[in-house]
Amino acid sequence: MVALGIFESAEGNTVLAETECRRLLGTRAFGRVGLTTGALPMIMPVEYVYDQGVITFRTEHDTKLVAAVHGAVLAFEVDAYDAESGTGWTVHVLGRATVIGAQYEAAPMPTLDDERPVGPRRHYVRLHCEIVSGRRLASSPR
Amino acid sequence: MVALGIFESAEGNTVLAETECRRLLGTRAFGRVGLTTGALPMIMPVEYVYDQGVITFRTEHDTKLVAAVHGAVLAFEVDAYDAESGTGWTVHVLGRATVIGAQYEAAPMPTLDDERPVGPRRHYVRLHCEIVSGRRLASSPR
Repeated sequence: MVALGIFESAEGNTVLAETECRRLLGTRAFGRVGLTTGALPMIMPVEYVYDQGVITFRTEHDTKLVAAVHGAVLAFEVDAYDAESGTGWTVHVLGRATVIGAQYEAAPMPTLDDERPVGPRRHYVRLHCEIVSGRRLASSPR
Repeated sequence: MVALGIFESAEGNTVLAETECRRLLGTRAFGRVGLTTGALPMIMPVEYVYDQGVITFRTEHDTKLVAAVHGAVLAFEVDAYDAESGTGWTVHVLGRATVIGAQYEAAPMPTLDDERPVGPRRHYVRLHCEIVSGRRLASSPR
């Protein structure tokens, strides 16, 4: 079996206070959205802005994806990791998403055959950070 | 609305060939597992090894988590991103996970009240990379 480091659980690492997690969210602009689509988990990297408890990112006009995120609970993760020392941090968010766009003001519930060419091609997604947690990562001895 | 970059869809970016995706998987040792637990999406950073189509990582003896990943379809994502240029790459994997550990040889289906103190505290998880995709990321003009 390959020797592999492991990130300790809450007992072994330093759990980050929520205020610190929210501060860290604001220090980055690249994170990952986690969602369930078609019963399968999916991770999607995004550029984002965090402001006052809300993560905003943009998504293509991909009806399937937009349908999956609109009104859904999304996970969001941002981290920093130093490969040499095996240390870093991770912040995890759970919250409900809202798709914002002219098209969705008129039709908030997109359907899978929604192919109207009118309206913005891209949408903003707002993720309201409801459950925010984080911890320092420290790889245990191998 | 805040100005935000966006990663173009497949048309705008360079879709990576599967062989290149698998090569990139082998160049990193830190990635993120995406799963659905309790009907909620979750992203969990891990140290990993990729070898011959299998991602191996370790997880704490956390029965809830082990139960969630054992036999489940997991997502796995690894990326590289340069904030200055807004470019990078992402590789995404879908596959079924197997928890490996002495405890699970005897009891492959853990239950939520499984609190036996015997057996290894940590488990290896093997993720068989069944669907592998990736693309180069390039943030569009803001």
